Parts: sequence; C-alpha cells; structure tokens
Amino acid sequence: MNIKIGILGYGNIGRGVETALRDNPDMELAAVFTRRDPSQVKILSENVPVISVSEIEAWKDKIDVLLLCGGSATDLPQQTPFYAKMFNVVDTFDTHAKVPAHFAAVDRSAKENGKIAIISVGWDPGLFSLSRLYGNVILPDGKDYTFWGKGVSQGHSDAIRRIKGVKNAKQYTCPVESAMRAVRNGENPELTTREKHIRECFVVLEDGADAAYVEKQIKTMPNYFAGYHTVVHFISEEEFDRNHQGLAHGGFVFRSGNTGKEKEHKHIIEFSLKLDSNPEFTTHVMAAYARAAARMAREGQTGCKTVFDIPPAYLSEKSGEKLRSSML
Amino acid sequence: MNIKIGILGYGNIGRGVETALRDNPDMELAAVFTRRDPSQVKILSENVPVISVSEIEAWKDKIDVLLLCGGSATDLPQQTPFYAKMFNVVDTFDTHAKVPAHFAAVDRSAKENGKIAIISVGWDPGLFSLSRLYGNVILPDGKDYTFWGKGVSQGHSDAIRRIKGVKNAKQYTCPVESAMRAVRNGENPELTTREKHIRECFVVLEDGADAAYVEKQIKTMPNYFAGYHTVVHFISEEEFDRNHQGLAHGGFVFRSGNTGKEKEHKHIIEFSLKLDSNPEFTTHVMAAYARAAARMAREGQTGCKTVFDIPPAYLSEKSGEKLRSSML
Repeated sequence: MNIKIGILGYGNIGRGVETALRDNPDMELAAVFTRRDPSQVKILSENVPVISVSEIEAWKDKIDVLLLCGGSATDLPQQTPFYAKMFNVVDTFDTHAKVPAHFAAVDRSAKENGKIAIISVGWDPGLFSLSRLYGNVILPDGKDYTFWGKGVSQGHSDAIRRIKGVKNAKQYTCPVESAMRAVRNGENPELTTREKHIRECFVVLEDGADAAYVEKQIKTMPNYFAGYHTVVHFISEEEFDRNHQGLAHGGFVFRSGNTGKEKEHKHIIEFSLKLDSNPEFTTHVMAAYARAAARMAREGQTGCKTVFDIPPAYLSEKSGEKLRSSML
Repeated sequence: MNIKIGILGYGNIGRGVETALRDNPDMELAAVFTRRDPSQVKILSENVPVISVSEIEAWKDKIDVLLLCGGSATDLPQQTPFYAKMFNVVDTFDTHAKVPAHFAAVDRSAKENGKIAIISVGWDPGLFSLSRLYGNVILPDGKDYTFWGKGVSQGHSDAIRRIKGVKNAKQYTCPVESAMRAVRNGENPELTTREKHIRECFVVLEDGADAAYVEKQIKTMPNYFAGYHTVVHFISEEEFDRNHQGLAHGGFVFRSGNTGKEKEHKHIIEFSLKLDSNPEFTTHVMAAYARAAARMAREGQTGCKTVFDIPPAYLSEKSGEKLRSSML
C-alpha cells in the first residue's frame, strides 16, 4: 500500500514535494493543506484536494506523513511541534544554531503523541551534515571545510533590496577557487567563512538612483557584506529578468585528515552538489526521509529524529536483500 | 569504559587497524591474533599480547569487537561466519558478486550465537555504496557513475607479474578525465567500465626479456586488459623501488539526475576520495563501524549488518545532542 503524503504550505517547497512524489511510485499525494483560501490555490496534481489548514485534524488517520513546507524563521518553530501531535512529520528546519531547542520541542510533542518527526532534512542541514559526520568519524585527526555555492542567498538578496534606490537584486554566494584548491591539495589552510566565499550582487536601480551610494551601502553592510570580497554589478531590469530568475545552488564539504604511525598519510574526502533547483532537490531529500518516517512509525518508533538517526536503508523502497545485491 | 578490540591477521589491514585505534581514544587494542608463530610477529603497540589464533576462544569475553583483517578471496568467506559464533565482528569483504551468499552465512551464524557482524566495511564497498544509495533514493530518475583511481590494482599487478620475462610490475587504474567531465556536465553519457578507465602499467623486465612480447601479452590479456586503453612503461628496478611502493588509491561516485514538472532541472551529486594509503583509510572506516557494532551489541541487536543498516550517529562516540549542536 502506498505511503500517503500530505503537504502543508504550497510555496516553492510544497510545489517541489509535489513533483518529487511523481518520482517515487510507492508514495502518493493525499492532500495539500493551505492557510490561504483553498479555492485560490491551483495545484499540479489532478484529483488531489486542497484543504484549509483549519480542517487538517479530520485528516489525522488518512495521512501517513505530513511534509511541513513552511519557513524556518517563523513557521516551523511553531508548526513542527504542533503538527507532530497529530501526524508523523518531516521538516526542513535550517537555522543551525536553533536546532537543539527545536529538537527538544518537537521530541516532546512527538513522544507524547506516539508520532515520528524528522527535522532539518535537506542538503545543509541534511546531506552536508551526513558528510561532516562520516568524515569526522573516519578521520578523527582532520579538518572540516564547507563551501557554499554557486547559489542564491535569499537573505542577502532581501537585504540589498531594502537599500534606498534599489529596485531588484540577487546575491550569489560563490566559493573561492584558490581556497578550494588549497583544501584539495591537503594543505589544511585556516579559512574563515569570509575567506572561502565571494559575494556577487546583481542590482537593478530605481530611475535616478545613485549607483555609488548603493554600492557603498552594500559593501559596508555589517554582518551581511562588510569584510567579504563583494562584487556589485548594476544591470538592466531586462537582463535581471532574463538571467537571474533561477534557484540554482550547491556546495562542497571536505574532510582532510591524516593517518599512519607518524601521521604521514593524507586523505581527502569530498562531497559536492551542483543543483539546478535548490527547492526541488531539497524536496527530493524530504521524500526519501518521509519513506523512512513511515517505516519507523510502522515499527512503533516515536520522537524526534534527524538524518543522523536514520539507517540509510530506510530511505529506500527496496528490500535489504535487493540493496545489497545492487548497490553495495 | 573503552571498547576492547581484537585484530585477527597482522598484514596491511591489521597494521592499519592498529594505527586507526590510536585516533579513537574510546577504543583500545586488547590483542592481536595471528596464524603465524606469535613470537615472530612484532607489533607497534606496547603491552598488547600477540596470541596464536588457536587460543582465540579463551578471549571470548575479553573482546568487544574482533576486526577480521584477512583477504576476501579465501580468508573471510571462512573466517567471518566462524568467528561470528564467538565475537562481534567487522570485516572488509569486497567481492561484490558474492555479498549475498556471504551475508547469509554470516547472518545465520551471528543470529544463532547472539552476535553482531558488520560486513563489507571500507570505501568500496562501504562509503561508495552509501553514496550510491543516498544518490538513488534522492534522485530516483538518474544515473550512477563510479570511477576508480588513480590507484593500484593488486590483482592486475599480479597478473602482469605472471608473464614470462617480468621481474616486477604495478598497475594503476586511472579515471578518464574526459568521461568524468561529461558526467559532471550532466551529459549522462553511456559508459562502460572500459570507457571510464585507463590501465597504466609500470614493468621491470628480467635481464634479456623481450619488451615487445611482454607488452603484447599485457595488452591482449583477456578480462584484465583486452579492450582497455592500456599504457605500458618499462622502467628500471631502481625507479620501481623509488616511485612505485605506495598504496595510494581513490575514486569518484556520481549520481546525475533530473527533477521538475518537465524534468527540466539537472542535479549532480559527487563523492570522491583521494587517499595516500588505501589500507589505512579502510581500517579507519572499520574502526568507526566497530564502535557501531559494540553499541548495537549492547542494545541486544544480533545478526549480519552492512553500512546500509547502521544509523550514522552510531559511528560516533559523541552523544546525539552533541552531534546535533556541532555537525548538523
């Protein structure tokens, strides 16, 4: 019997889940829940109802796993503990510093209600976290390096758009090639986040705006750009619309370590992603972890889990036997 | 209390385990077991006994996990099911085609005796298998590519050494750069193992041997070299001893897949290793899985497991809380 999936929130992530389920024939979309007027939400799937979130409780027994597709800033800290009372849930909570508090709240709620909740699913946190963990346990004497990009940083793009005179803007985070090369060569450099990344900005100005002023405001913005190698390009609205609508992203995780009697041997573990669509890739990761959530729930497991707790085989619809003969 | 480790077999792998344990302070080497005369086996560690394998049964309750450091061709098919009767064990069984039979034999033996056995630990099978699994579940609509090298193939080196007139030889398997580039570009090429690899051979001839004959014998050798792009270098014994003693290896696993309404988005997942010492890296992977074996045994789990069955957190000595706050 197929795993019945609910989507809560129909933005980029919700739409991504919907297409991801098409690639996973053992799962099916049961319903989309929205805070908007359901009659105004047009989804891709035929014969799948769009339901007001106010009626979600009636679906308690009709859904195996609810995928929470809201944002980490305000939605998920509320939603995940709340919906883990009624459903097995998966979220993409990605505020690294707040993971412990989020985990505690979700764990309490899920355990009290006999549900499974898998949080912080995606690629960072998610697959990158797994790479860091495998790298650290295999090469305890070593260093970690995470590079992001090339990809759009939504928060930084928003920050530029708040500057007076800016009509539209997109900020790309790009890894510094020479820093990556040093890591690949096993040089074990000391690198701050600022030394590992360039911030490249594409800005459309309002009519009559002062380019020099805008550029200075960007480059000196505390926390966001000050201290970074920041490149600003002013472009036309046409060029912006033509070339900067994408949601590509990616990044690299390295573990560089030494082994041997005299620590004479170097080893480099490298994991990287090159993604045309950040939300679609993220939601494909979610779909695989939804499968694991359904299996853990069937086994009677409860509480909050992360990617660290899930045996890799639980992500696959294939039997252990089939996995061993085809992929080991 | 530290995890007490036994090593069975003191070759490259056994010696690698010994140095790996020094990087893992929660584990300690309790004894090395050998088929040779123990008085002739000199190990690195002080105050650790070297014991004849004939006396291993007396160590049943003094060792938490026994690491089996023999070869896959003849040792492990016998040893792993046999020692899983007395010990929790980890092996590096790497004959992909024979994994199902090996698993079945080990599982039966471990279950009957209440032990945990983790087989096929290392990097391929092992970390590469994990990359294939994660890649497949996340991008179900995609293709896998595994490239090996640059690294020494022991079996191919041996095959060259059997040719009349060859004094010594080393064969390196090298990935074809243009094939890797096509994969990284998302071109999804159809590639056989032969199209992905070059076989580079360094050969020392016996005095008076016929180089042309040897080269032809190599290049036309069925299964091993015929059909491969094979390069043969004849070198002096001095050069061989100076430059070809290393045990470096590595490789690449790609998953190239598509997502989206019209499958319009490409994604590339890449995992790679660059290793100065194949046996030392392999044994560092074994050490991490020995920790998982000890934990599963404490929990009362039994039977045969592979890397697919082990929750990543079980590989670390850190608590779940610590892992979430430091690596997620």
